[in-house]
Order: sequence, then C-alpha cells, then structure tokens
Amino acid sequence: MAKVNENYAKLPGSYLFAEIARRVAAYSAEHPEAKLIKLGIGDVTRPLAPAVIEAMHKAVDEMAHKETFRGYGPEQGYDFLRQAIVKGDFAPYGVNIAEDEIFVSDGAKSDCGNIGDIFSTHNVVAVCDPVYPVYVDTNAMAGRAGEYLTDEERWSNIYYMPTTAENGFVPELPKTPVDLIYLCSPNNPTGTTLNRDQLKVWVDYANEHDAVILFDAAYEAFITEPDVPHTIYEIPGAETCAIEFHSFSKTAGFTGNRCAYTVVPKALVRQGQSLNAMWNRRHTTKFNGVPYVVQRGAEAVYSEEGRNQVRETIAFYQENARVIREGLKEAGLEVYGGVNSPYVWFKTPTDSWSFFDRLLKEANVVTTPGAGFGPSGEGYIRVTAFGDAEATKEAVKRIIELLK
Amino acid sequence: MAKVNENYAKLPGSYLFAEIARRVAAYSAEHPEAKLIKLGIGDVTRPLAPAVIEAMHKAVDEMAHKETFRGYGPEQGYDFLRQAIVKGDFAPYGVNIAEDEIFVSDGAKSDCGNIGDIFSTHNVVAVCDPVYPVYVDTNAMAGRAGEYLTDEERWSNIYYMPTTAENGFVPELPKTPVDLIYLCSPNNPTGTTLNRDQLKVWVDYANEHDAVILFDAAYEAFITEPDVPHTIYEIPGAETCAIEFHSFSKTAGFTGNRCAYTVVPKALVRQGQSLNAMWNRRHTTKFNGVPYVVQRGAEAVYSEEGRNQVRETIAFYQENARVIREGLKEAGLEVYGGVNSPYVWFKTPTDSWSFFDRLLKEANVVTTPGAGFGPSGEGYIRVTAFGDAEATKEAVKRIIELLK
Repeated sequence: MAKVNENYAKLPGSYLFAEIARRVAAYSAEHPEAKLIKLGIGDVTRPLAPAVIEAMHKAVDEMAHKETFRGYGPEQGYDFLRQAIVKGDFAPYGVNIAEDEIFVSDGAKSDCGNIGDIFSTHNVVAVCDPVYPVYVDTNAMAGRAGEYLTDEERWSNIYYMPTTAENGFVPELPKTPVDLIYLCSPNNPTGTTLNRDQLKVWVDYANEHDAVILFDAAYEAFITEPDVPHTIYEIPGAETCAIEFHSFSKTAGFTGNRCAYTVVPKALVRQGQSLNAMWNRRHTTKFNGVPYVVQRGAEAVYSEEGRNQVRETIAFYQENARVIREGLKEAGLEVYGGVNSPYVWFKTPTDSWSFFDRLLKEANVVTTPGAGFGPSGEGYIRVTAFGDAEATKEAVKRIIELLK
Repeated sequence: MAKVNENYAKLPGSYLFAEIARRVAAYSAEHPEAKLIKLGIGDVTRPLAPAVIEAMHKAVDEMAHKETFRGYGPEQGYDFLRQAIVKGDFAPYGVNIAEDEIFVSDGAKSDCGNIGDIFSTHNVVAVCDPVYPVYVDTNAMAGRAGEYLTDEERWSNIYYMPTTAENGFVPELPKTPVDLIYLCSPNNPTGTTLNRDQLKVWVDYANEHDAVILFDAAYEAFITEPDVPHTIYEIPGAETCAIEFHSFSKTAGFTGNRCAYTVVPKALVRQGQSLNAMWNRRHTTKFNGVPYVVQRGAEAVYSEEGRNQVRETIAFYQENARVIREGLKEAGLEVYGGVNSPYVWFKTPTDSWSFFDRLLKEANVVTTPGAGFGPSGEGYIRVTAFGDAEATKEAVKRIIELLK
C-alpha cells in the first residue's frame, strides 16, 4: 500500500493571497465603479530589457537550425552564463566565487525549497518572523517543522526570530541551538536590510556552531546604501557557512522568464561532506537545466547595454518606492524599507486585516496584510513598488487623503 | 550543527556516461584520424519545428512590451497549454483527463524525481531492470533504497524486476509487496513496450494492492503499433492508481527547451489524501512555472502545422531506428526495440563493456553498454536513432562489416 508523506496533512491552507483575492473580488462585485490600484503582489510589470529580447530572439533562431540547435545543456548552466555571473555579480565586490560554485536554475523559490534535499530532516530550522512562507512550508513538507500549532500560528520545531521595529529589524542570535538559518536581505516582506556588521554577527555565529546560513539575495539589485552587502560572501568566513540564492526575477523582470542561480562554495563542508558536491549531485539528478533561450536572455543582462537598461527599470521601481515611502510618512504612518528594496512596510493603526480592509474600501488600494507572513507580521502592511508610476502616486495620494 | 542527508554518501558514482566519455576521449587521442559516429546518448539533434520557433518569437515580442508582458504565470501552467494537452494528448484516445489534473513542468526528469516528495519514505519501490537511473537514484537520495550492495550493484530495499529477452521484456508481478512501481513504456533503455493487456495486469495489481504506478510516457510519440497504449489512462482503472509523466523533449525536440507535464488524476487517493491536491501543493510551493515563451512553444506543437512538422521529425528518427534495427539483424545480432521507440537494444556476443570497446575501436561507433542501466542490462547494448541519417547508415554498415 502506497503511503503518503504525512507532513502534507499538517500544512495549514495557504490562504494569504487567496484571501486577499477573495476580499478584493467581493468588494469589486459590490462596487464595480471602484478603480482599484493593486500594490499587493510582488510581481514586476515592466517589460524585459531590449538587450534581453534581442538575445532571446537570436537564441530562438539558433534553435531553428540543425547547425546551431542545442539539445541538453549542462544541468548546472552553460559556461557563458556562469562566467557572466562570476564576473558581473561577484568580482565587482572583490568576492572570489568560482564558476563551478554557481548552479543556474529555474527559480530562487525552487532552490530555497529544494536545498533541503541535501540536509538531514533532523536539523533545527531558524527563520525570521515575518517570513517568506516558502522557507517554512518546504521545511514542514520535509518533516523538519514538527507540528503546526494553530492557535499560535507557528510550527513546534521551527525557531522563529522576531524582526520588528522593536529590534530595528535585526534578528537576535538564537538562544537555543539552530542548524539551518534562513536570512533574506534586502528582506521580503519588511524591505529592511542587514548591514555588513550585522551580517558578520551571523556568519561568525554559523561558523562557530557549524550551522549553515541559507541567504536569499533575490532583491540585491535594489540596494542603494554602501554598507549593505550585495552578497554574503563579502563577509569574511561566509564561504565556510553560507549558501546564497540569487534570481533574475526582480533584477531583470524574469518572473515569467524563470532564471535564477544558487551559490554553494566548495569550502562549505559539513560532517565531512562537500555541500557543493552534494548539491551538484542533486542538481544533475533531479533537474535538467534552464532553457537555452532563457540562459542567453540572462547572459544579456550582464552586457553593457543590458546592464544599463536593467538599471533604468530598477530606478523606475525605486522611484515608486520613494513615492510610497515619503507619501506614507506624510500620511503619518511609521514606515520601513523601500530604500534598498521594492517593498515598503508600515505599522498599521489597527490590526493588519482591518487596516487592509479600510485601505481597500475607503482608498480602493490593495495591499498585503503583514499577518500573512507570520505572527510578528501582525500590525504591519506590505506595499510593493512594482506598479505603474502614475497609479502608485494616485494610490499614495488617496491614502494621505484618507488618513488626514 | 547542520547535519547532511546521509543517503547521499551511499550513492555510487554516476559513472556510465562519464566512463563512456573517458574511453572515447582516450581512443580519439590515440587515433585522431578516426571518424567516430556517436549513437550513444539519447539527445535529439533536429531543430525545433518552424511552428514552435514562430510561436516563441511571437512570445518573446510580447515580453518586450508593457501591455503584453507576462510576469508570474500559474505554477501549474497556463490554461492555453493545459487545454491543448487535454485536447491533443488524451481526447484522441477517448481518455477523460481534466485540465486541473495536468501539471506543466520543466522536465520529466525533474518530476520523476520530485514526485517522491509527496510519498512517505517508508514505501517499497519497484523498478524494471535495466532502468533509467533517475528512478533509483532519487529514491536512494530520499532514503527509500536502503543500502547499496556494491558487489551486486543493487540497493537492498529496491525491488528489481528483470525485463529481459527471457521474459519478453515484460516484468513479472512482484512476489513480495511493493508500493510505488515505476513503469516506462516505450522503455528506456530497451525500446520495448507493454501492450494493453500487459499494462492492464499492472493496473489491476496496483488497484488491488493500493500501490501507485509512476508511468513514464516520455517516448509515447514513437509508438507505431495499435495495441500499445499512448497513455496508461487508456486502461480502465488507471485513474485510481497511476501518475503519468510526459515530456516535449523527445516528442518535439525540447531537450534544450525544457517543458514537460505530469498527470495526477483527482480519483487517485491514498490514505484518505488526494494525490492531486498534494502534488498541487508541492508544485505551487517548490516550483514557479515554466517560462511563458517556452509554454507558447509547447502550445504550437499541438497546432495543425506544428503537429505535422513534429511528426516529420519523429518519422526521420523512426527511419533511423529502422535502419539500425534491420542492419543489426543483418549483422547477425539479436535485436529488440526500435519499432515504437528511438532506442534499439541488442544482445552482445561478449559482455557489454567489451563489446562497447570493440565497436568503438574496430567500427568507430559509440554506443551505450547495457550494464550501465542495472544488473539485467549486462549482455546488451543500447543504440539511439537520434543521429544524422547518413551517419546512422554508415555506422550500421561498419558494424555489419565488422561482424561478417
């Protein structure tokens, strides 16, 4: 008799965006005249850069002819892309990452989840709270989370580290032993960051305790302040304790184009095993590479032309973030993030779902209630800068009016 | 202290294609004048169909403009593709599969491995022997395989079902209980198939024992004989016991374009859990969809134009298979497969590595020794039909000469 993975039955429903959609649909049905502005979902809206488009067209043409057609590529990614990544994302920061420490994949979400494959189920996982739900759910599926405590909205075996205004959005070191530590900077959902000194505390902790940091750098392209590291490997010692996830989704608008990469340093060894060799085995056995056409598109992000075009798009979203940040402040709200991030996180005068409803009904602006990201997200709301410039301005204006 | 997944350390090296490459390189270095013909690897060589190319160009153009740009798509695949699959791959065989039973993915290899996520590690896995190594390795990684017995070249907890000339390449029903059964028809590596009656035996067995069949239909497009089912769901009762994997890799030359899909019927329930709901949860949590451009390319495979073009390419490979099959017979070899498959499997006069060496050195033809696919692959060699037509003819001619 086939037996199912019993951990799945423990998972609570994934209600956040479904519940938002339900409330928005209900309101729209009652008020078909309302012009809703959606600043809720973290998806990009600007088109792919012209250099990326050109590279993809060229690659499609190559696939049309026997002489230039590409079948199976290396599972870890083509050399041309791994080289461009090393040169474009690490060398500029004086970080020495080798090509064979880069694993090109279809998404940081996939990798953040799949990375658990190479670890025992007997690790204690630590996450920041609020948290990107994928870190928690994938560990719950694998059996590392224990039992879900419905009343407390948390898992019995996950170590939650509050990251709130009270501690300046810098998690405290764990008081009991943890083995796998997810850190995300710039953070989703709070939009805040860990600076060099703050991140060094974690690298030192992980090395001292033989823990592994799973560092999500998906929003790296939005960093503007000089003391925020673009990669954890800027911190000495990170190569012996950290795996890093990057994505072209937010950097270059690849959410619908699917390309990312994960860095597993060869110096990272646990229980005598090279995690680079283990991930290589996992990646080559359970994955078969990213489409050639997409890899050529990703490569173009690193050309001079591509880089300039991508920067322009990032600047567009950054200006939206500035508009949101300053507007919400003007509205009298306590505002965080948005400086090195497309996300602005603000304290709500009432609980987060009530304030979500008020913004929906009285300002016709859709946001994301912080409670959906974990217990410590309660009392906050996330707003994203990925919208249209005029609509973003209009949304902010409405919120200012509402709270006058 | 972070603890690794200790099952990885049990894995024997993945030597087959590396060892082939080593022997070929050594021979080439000594005989730079030798004109080697490679009939070893199962990768396609013909370009993508013009209809696919056109659809991909169009989709790339859509990604270039704000109005038509696509960000995150549904993780399970766009409706346009799921609808085309239902209409193109199931309706023609009178099989009633719903759109929400189709999960579009980046590859059948990924899915064949990842499907294990939704099952307990306490299942007994049965595989045909010889076998596509991914079935075994991914279960070993998950802890379902027990210990690797080096001398026997098998895992202690895997149930191996010999499929050889002696039983007509039809595995016998297990003598002890098994829970998850991998079947691949048309088979890789043997190129043989299970017909309707033979497959029905397995469907009945699985339903009777509450086992689950993991049916790999990656080579379905090569079927020519009417009594070979194109999908396991042609067999009554399969919807309550089988998950099916399809791929565009061999059907439409997508090995470098990465698109596939998995069917999980809603009627498939084990221990009170819907496997469709479980896989949906897994797919939406640990995967983020296939690139829009690639999905449009896959959709074009189902247009009238696309279908005709793809059939022409399949016919090209099928003619190669015929040339190989008849040529090897003429050479006096005992030959299997190649009728409903791009793979031809033949009995070797000596052990498979020795005969591989002889073909390499005396005919300058590269093949794949059967021993690499498991204990019962010993004494056979696999030849693939994915090469150039003239080169394939020349290779066969050389083998005939050699064995005269």
